Amino acid sequence: MSRVKAFDGVFEMPVPGRTMKPRKEGVTMIIDKGLGLGATQDLLDSAAEVIDFIKLTFGTSAFLDLDYLMEKVEMVKDRDIWICPGGTFLEVSVWQGVYPKYLKRCKELGFNAIEVSDGTIEIDLQTRGDCIKRAVDMGFMVVSEVGKKDPNEAIATSKMHEEIAADLSNGAFKVIVEAREAGKGVGIYDKDGKPKSAEVDAIIRGVDDIAKLEWEAPIKDQQQFLILRFGPNVSLGNVPPEDILALEALRNGLRGDTLKKAFLANPRYNIKNDHRLAKK
Amino acid sequence: MSRVKAFDGVFEMPVPGRTMKPRKEGVTMIIDKGLGLGATQDLLDSAAEVIDFIKLTFGTSAFLDLDYLMEKVEMVKDRDIWICPGGTFLEVSVWQGVYPKYLKRCKELGFNAIEVSDGTIEIDLQTRGDCIKRAVDMGFMVVSEVGKKDPNEAIATSKMHEEIAADLSNGAFKVIVEAREAGKGVGIYDKDGKPKSAEVDAIIRGVDDIAKLEWEAPIKDQQQFLILRFGPNVSLGNVPPEDILALEALRNGLRGDTLKKAFLANPRYNIKNDHRLAKK
Amino acid sequence: MSRVKAFDGVFEMPVPGRTMKPRKEGVTMIIDKGLGLGATQDLLDSAAEVIDFIKLTFGTSAFLDLDYLMEKVEMVKDRDIWICPGGTFLEVSVWQGVYPKYLKRCKELGFNAIEVSDGTIEIDLQTRGDCIKRAVDMGFMVVSEVGKKDPNEAIATSKMHEEIAADLSNGAFKVIVEAREAGKGVGIYDKDGKPKSAEVDAIIRGVDDIAKLEWEAPIKDQQQFLILRFGPNVSLGNVPPEDILALEALRNGLRGDTLKKAFLANPRYNIKNDHRLAKK
Repeated sequence: MSRVKAFDGVFEMPVPGRTMKPRKEGVTMIIDKGLGLGATQDLLDSAAEVIDFIKLTFGTSAFLDLDYLMEKVEMVKDRDIWICPGGTFLEVSVWQGVYPKYLKRCKELGFNAIEVSDGTIEIDLQTRGDCIKRAVDMGFMVVSEVGKKDPNEAIATSKMHEEIAADLSNGAFKVIVEAREAGKGVGIYDKDGKPKSAEVDAIIRGVDDIAKLEWEAPIKDQQQFLILRFGPNVSLGNVPPEDILALEALRNGLRGDTLKKAFLANPRYNIKNDHRLAKK
Repeated sequence: MSRVKAFDGVFEMPVPGRTMKPRKEGVTMIIDKGLGLGATQDLLDSAAEVIDFIKLTFGTSAFLDLDYLMEKVEMVKDRDIWICPGGTFLEVSVWQGVYPKYLKRCKELGFNAIEVSDGTIEIDLQTRGDCIKRAVDMGFMVVSEVGKKDPNEAIATSKMHEEIAADLSNGAFKVIVEAREAGKGVGIYDKDGKPKSAEVDAIIRGVDDIAKLEWEAPIKDQQQFLILRFGPNVSLGNVPPEDILALEALRNGLRGDTLKKAFLANPRYNIKNDHRLAKK
Repeated sequence: MSRVKAFDGVFEMPVPGRTMKPRKEGVTMIIDKGLGLGATQDLLDSAAEVIDFIKLTFGTSAFLDLDYLMEKVEMVKDRDIWICPGGTFLEVSVWQGVYPKYLKRCKELGFNAIEVSDGTIEIDLQTRGDCIKRAVDMGFMVVSEVGKKDPNEAIATSKMHEEIAADLSNGAFKVIVEAREAGKGVGIYDKDGKPKSAEVDAIIRGVDDIAKLEWEAPIKDQQQFLILRFGPNVSLGNVPPEDILALEALRNGLRGDTLKKAFLANPRYNIKNDHRLAKK
């Protein structure tokens, strides 16, 4: 349950309607490059209610001691947060033909979610579907990812639409739009990380329920663009752990850019009370 | 009191004259986007003597449990450090007509400082002055901020000078020159974050005591520019927590760029002793 | 000894041959701007086996309490990791004629390594050699650094070759190629941080054993360039602590860009097993 917050009762959130956990919409996924147990404890104690999902990105968890990782996974699940290894492991295990073995180990390690991607290794649509279904059957929450990591092989939007529809019908909870850790020169972002509206339009045009999309948005201006475009409950991924509260402030209109929009929509709101501020 | 430091007595600081706490000049303000209690403890144990002020930026603290935030505020105050919520809260509470209620809550939470800004929401000079005076009357240390977050509405330098003079006469301890968290395309910085000398000149030209200014300088090259321009005891804000010791090294000439200047001013200093280095 | 890792036995590393500690090749050096004891503990518990060296960069450790620093140094050495203060201290102590005193204090503080550089202060080759030999005689592991911090005084490659040969014959374990903390507009990187192949070629052309070089590579694309160029066991420095596991993933082919290369070298590897993935 939600606890008493520091400023409860003092003012209203400038942007109302933010969803609460467990969230179906407005999910925030943290990208974790290897937070230690201490930093993980800090993150959970300060922000568990605004974190829905933690991805232990790339192959980073391959270098952690088995018991150390199990302890971390438990800490995260105790706060009702989904946690999965990076999609890289799935791609490698499919490539090496050990996907079932990989899922078994993920279960043993305590993971409650799996990311299915083909950002680097070619995986045909049939195999991709099998991967999702097998993970779902084993009780994992599954997120899939569309888009290539290498800008030189950006896939056609039509193929992206096909994958999104197939993944969702196969049981994926969300489909992530790839942007890598850096968020530059890939997918909907140009080489400087600036969002390309036309690309966003092209993607959503072929998706029935855009609330099923999760946009990787590591940079603040990208998060802001997507929140101003889709509202406070757009699902966002690859959020750096240190930015989690800043993002929640942005969603709720407690940061410059989204506050500005809320203010302009209602510029005189209670300013009549200015006199109450005067020094006695 | 200052403790014995690791290299005391080995060499002299290349740049002498750095002030000690409690500082009236050369204040360093940390921008805190939501450090947990563990990270806060780390920061204080390693750097409390070079931190004068911590700002819990934007509306981030609105998402912290009330008791969790109170514990953090106490930890910080125990090290003789000023701590305030982001100016965003003040702007929202003035807009919503609940400023007195906001100050009361800040007092209950233990904050010993308040930031008064209008970076996003329009606040007339009269109201701004009332806000500062009311906070000062309640015993808060007050810092005010000049400049807009949105580059499209940069204010005239003359208005900035008027605000600075008014804020100080109303009791503000320092007036902060806005640069946001990113420090790019705002105030004295161009879109790449490069300082604009002419803008700096224009600002100080209309200020009686420039030691009363605190420059937001989140990026190292910005800190360096201001230190080379105004000396080791220029007041700087929006310093990322992880850069606090690197900034102190820069102030004292223990980092390349400021060391270079000190060296060039006295290139032969004791080099005669080189022979003492020879292998026996 | 190496412990059981989270995914041992599930798949093979896409890029084989990564060295284990104690490493003579493929050394990773962390740049530490002032991690507290808590963060240091986190770093060591999660990644000690992939960290060979920690540099407490610039003059940051001058601001730490003597006992606090000693405790940190012990924690690090307990994991068989080299730890040294930034080369800035050496440059200042040579300049001020107190180098012997500096080495004595480093010994008292527990450091087991010393960085010898002249990135900022002019040090003649004779003195540089004396510095290295004296530190080696006192039992320190010594790394030296070639290159200037200021791009305006980039040294001739021929002088760099001379320094590298001299430093190694004087007992340096590795010679570091300077790139600063930012890795932009210095040494082998252009102003955007992009590696300059020609510069790299020019440097290695004059070096007998390129395994003796450690390249400062703070940015992921730089690490990737050097790994793709020299293999998984290239020695890299100035790696931010938060990126240590991501770098190890990159070395082992468990991150997009190096995985891609391994996949293209063997694209059909076991894909025949796809049917094993099919839902029963």
